[in-house]
Amino acid sequence: MGMTMTQKILAKKAGLSSVSAGQLINADVDMVLGNDITTPVAIDEFEKARFDGVFNRSRISIVLDHFTPNKDIKAAELSKRCRQFAGKYDIENFYDVGEMGIEHALLPEKGLAAPGELIVGADSHTCTYGALGAFSTGFGSTDMAAVMATGKCWFKVPSAIRFNLTGKLKKWVSGKDVILHIIGMIGVDGALYQSMEFGGDGLGCLSIDDRLTMANMAIEAGGKNGIFEVDDITREYLNGRVSREYTEVTPDADAPYEKVIDLDLGSIRPTVAFPHLPENTRTEEEWGDVPIDQVVIGSCTNGRISDLRIAAEILKGRKIARGIRCIIIPGTQNIYLEAMRAGYVETFIQAGCVVSTPTCGPCLGGYMGILAPGERCVATTNRNFVGRMGHVKSEVYLASPAVAAASAIAGKIASPDKIKGGE
Amino acid sequence: MGMTMTQKILAKKAGLSSVSAGQLINADVDMVLGNDITTPVAIDEFEKARFDGVFNRSRISIVLDHFTPNKDIKAAELSKRCRQFAGKYDIENFYDVGEMGIEHALLPEKGLAAPGELIVGADSHTCTYGALGAFSTGFGSTDMAAVMATGKCWFKVPSAIRFNLTGKLKKWVSGKDVILHIIGMIGVDGALYQSMEFGGDGLGCLSIDDRLTMANMAIEAGGKNGIFEVDDITREYLNGRVSREYTEVTPDADAPYEKVIDLDLGSIRPTVAFPHLPENTRTEEEWGDVPIDQVVIGSCTNGRISDLRIAAEILKGRKIARGIRCIIIPGTQNIYLEAMRAGYVETFIQAGCVVSTPTCGPCLGGYMGILAPGERCVATTNRNFVGRMGHVKSEVYLASPAVAAASAIAGKIASPDKIKGGE
Repeated sequence: MGMTMTQKILAKKAGLSSVSAGQLINADVDMVLGNDITTPVAIDEFEKARFDGVFNRSRISIVLDHFTPNKDIKAAELSKRCRQFAGKYDIENFYDVGEMGIEHALLPEKGLAAPGELIVGADSHTCTYGALGAFSTGFGSTDMAAVMATGKCWFKVPSAIRFNLTGKLKKWVSGKDVILHIIGMIGVDGALYQSMEFGGDGLGCLSIDDRLTMANMAIEAGGKNGIFEVDDITREYLNGRVSREYTEVTPDADAPYEKVIDLDLGSIRPTVAFPHLPENTRTEEEWGDVPIDQVVIGSCTNGRISDLRIAAEILKGRKIARGIRCIIIPGTQNIYLEAMRAGYVETFIQAGCVVSTPTCGPCLGGYMGILAPGERCVATTNRNFVGRMGHVKSEVYLASPAVAAASAIAGKIASPDKIKGGE
Repeated sequence: MGMTMTQKILAKKAGLSSVSAGQLINADVDMVLGNDITTPVAIDEFEKARFDGVFNRSRISIVLDHFTPNKDIKAAELSKRCRQFAGKYDIENFYDVGEMGIEHALLPEKGLAAPGELIVGADSHTCTYGALGAFSTGFGSTDMAAVMATGKCWFKVPSAIRFNLTGKLKKWVSGKDVILHIIGMIGVDGALYQSMEFGGDGLGCLSIDDRLTMANMAIEAGGKNGIFEVDDITREYLNGRVSREYTEVTPDADAPYEKVIDLDLGSIRPTVAFPHLPENTRTEEEWGDVPIDQVVIGSCTNGRISDLRIAAEILKGRKIARGIRCIIIPGTQNIYLEAMRAGYVETFIQAGCVVSTPTCGPCLGGYMGILAPGERCVATTNRNFVGRMGHVKSEVYLASPAVAAASAIAGKIASPDKIKGGE
C-alpha cells in the first residue's frame, strides 16, 4: 500500500522502506526547537539525565520569544538559563533579544526548515513548518531534552486526512480564513493525531505565508501535523534561504486517507472563531453586533509580512475607532524592518495603533495587551480558549489580519468589504 | 525680600503678593496628572470622598504608560478603571494605548505645560516640566484625588539652590551628564525639599530635551522641583505647541538661596551613576572594566528625539556586542514616528537592538527588559536603586544615551569617544 507525504518522511527518517498508520518508529531529527518557556524545563531534564552533550549543535534551535524582552524576574531567569545552556554547548541557532523573532516566523525565514525534513519542537505550533513540505510537530520539554542529546525521537505513525484544494481565494480572504473554515467544519478534534495533508490546484493561490498560517493551526484541529505539497511557490521561497539539499515528497496515488475533503477555496468567506474554541466559526451574516476593546495583529499564525501588508492596506489613511487599542506585532526583526521600509509601520502609527517589538506576548496571555474582565479582542492569533489572553471573563475572537484591521476601524467585528467596499 | 522663580509662581497661584520659604499656602493648580498605577488609587479616594465631579475636565491628564500595553490581568484592570473614570468625567487629556507615550515625554509635546504654570502629578518625576519654567512636582494618589475635585493643593514653599550655568557642553556630553554630575556633587538628599533653580549663560547650549532630562531628575537629589529660566530656546519650543497665554518668571536679584553653585558646563564629562544610588557617580577613569548584559535607552528621562538621535549617531553602521540585549524605547508615538522617518529605527534594528512601543516598562521593573540575578544594565533611566529593574541581585548603571549606546557596542561601560574617536 502507498504512503502519505507524512508517512514517506517518517519512513525515510526511520530508515524503513515503508511505514503505516499506528506503527511505532524511531526516527532521526533534522531540527529540534525550544523557546524561553519550554527550554529551561528541557535543560533541567537534560542535566538530570547527565547527557554527555548535544547530538549536533547546528540542529538545535532555541528562540527567546514568549516573555522577551523579559516580562518579569521569572522570565529573566528562564532566559538566562537558556543563554547559559546555549553558550555551554555552542548552540548555533540561539536567538536572543535583538536577533530574534517569534520562533515559527523565524525558523522558515532563516532557512532552518525544508521539504522532507523532520522537525520537532517543545511548542505546540511547531507544526507550522509543514507549509514547506516538512514533517513537523510539537512535543514536550522532556522529549526535547532527549532529542537534544540523541537526535532521535519515537513516533506513532499518523493516519491522514487529505484536503484537495481547488479554486481561488476571493479578495480579503486568506489562509487564516481557510484553516478557520476547516476547523469549524471538522472540529477541534476533527484531525486527532492525524496528519492534515494539503494539495491540489488550489495551492497556486496560497502564498507561503498563507500555508504557514494553515499548517500552524493544524494542532487546533487536533492534528499531529499539517503538510503541504511542494510547488514552485515553495521552491521560490526556499531559493536563497536553504542551500542544503532537500527531498520533496509527494503522496502515493494509493496513499491511505481516513478521509478526503474537497474544498473550493473560492467558496471560503471571511471567517471568525467566536469564544471559546477555534471550531466555533461564523461568517459575516452570523457575526451580529460585537463591540470590541482590542485588536491584536501578529503571532506565529499571522505576524508575517503579507499579514502586515493586508492590515496596512486596510488601515492606510484611516483611524481606528475611539476606545480601541490596536497592537501590531511583526513576527521577526526582519519582518519589522521590511514593514517599516514599506511604510506599513508609519500607516499603523498614523492610524492610532502601537507597534511592538517581535514577541508572542498577548497570544498566550504573556504580556503586551492582556485583557481585563469583560473585554473583547479580535486577534489574528490561534487560540481563543477561556482566559487565553487574560482574565477568564475576557473573550478572544480569532480572525484574519483583514478582518482584524477592519474591526479596529469599525470598533466591532467587521468585514474588510465593509471598510474597503468595492475598492 | 525678593523671591525665587518657584516662589513667584507659588505666590501668584496662591493669590499672594509674596511668599517665603517654609510658608504653607493653598494654590490653584493648572494641571494634575496621573498614570495607570497611581490614578486607580486616586479614583478610589475620589469615590470614597463622594466628590460631585472634577474641577475642570481640561486640567486633568491621565496617561496609561507604566504597564501598557497591559502587562498582565492586574494591569488590565487598572487601565480599565482609568478608562471608565476618564469616560465618566469626559477627561480631555486621557491618553490610552495608541495615543500615548510616557507621561513626562507626552505632556510637553502636547503643549500641556508652559512657563509660570503649576503642575502636580501622582508620579515622582512630575518635576520634569520645570524645564519649561513651570513649577511642577510629584505627590501622592490621595492628593491627586483631592486636586481632581478641587483644583487646589497646599504646599510648603521651598527654599532654593541656584545653579549658575556657564560654558558649553563638550561633544557627547548632555543634560544627563550634567544632572548626574550635580547629584554626585550634592547627594541624593542634597536638595531636600528645595527647588533647584537653573539659569545663566550656559543655558544657551542646553536643548529643551537636555533641560527636561535635568528637571526630571531633580527629585533624585531630593528636590521639590527643578526649574529653568525661560529663554529663546524655550519660546521656540513652545511656539506652535502652547497657544494660551503664559507667564515667564525670573528670579529677583535679591532672591534668597540656601546655596549658589557655579557650574562650568565645559568641565562636565560623561558621567555614570554606579549601583545603587544616583549620587554614586563616576567619570571615565573610575569606570574600570564593567561587562554588561543589557542596555536600555528610553524613559521619561531620556526617551526623546534628541536622545534617540545621539544613540543612532553612535550605533549607525555598527553592531552591538554579542550577548548584549539593547532595548530602545521612544518616549511617545510621535517620537517613534520621527525616529523612524529619520532612519534611527532602521539603524537600531540593523545594529541588533529591539525597538519597543512607548512605555515606562523596564525603568521601574515593570516589563520589557527585566533583569535576572547577577545581570547588569546600563540605562538612560533615572533610578538605580536595589531591584529597580528586576532582581535585587541585578545592577543598574545610569548614563546618557551616548554612553549607553557606546556601552552596547563595547559590551561594557564605555565612553562614546572610545567608539567614535575623533569623528
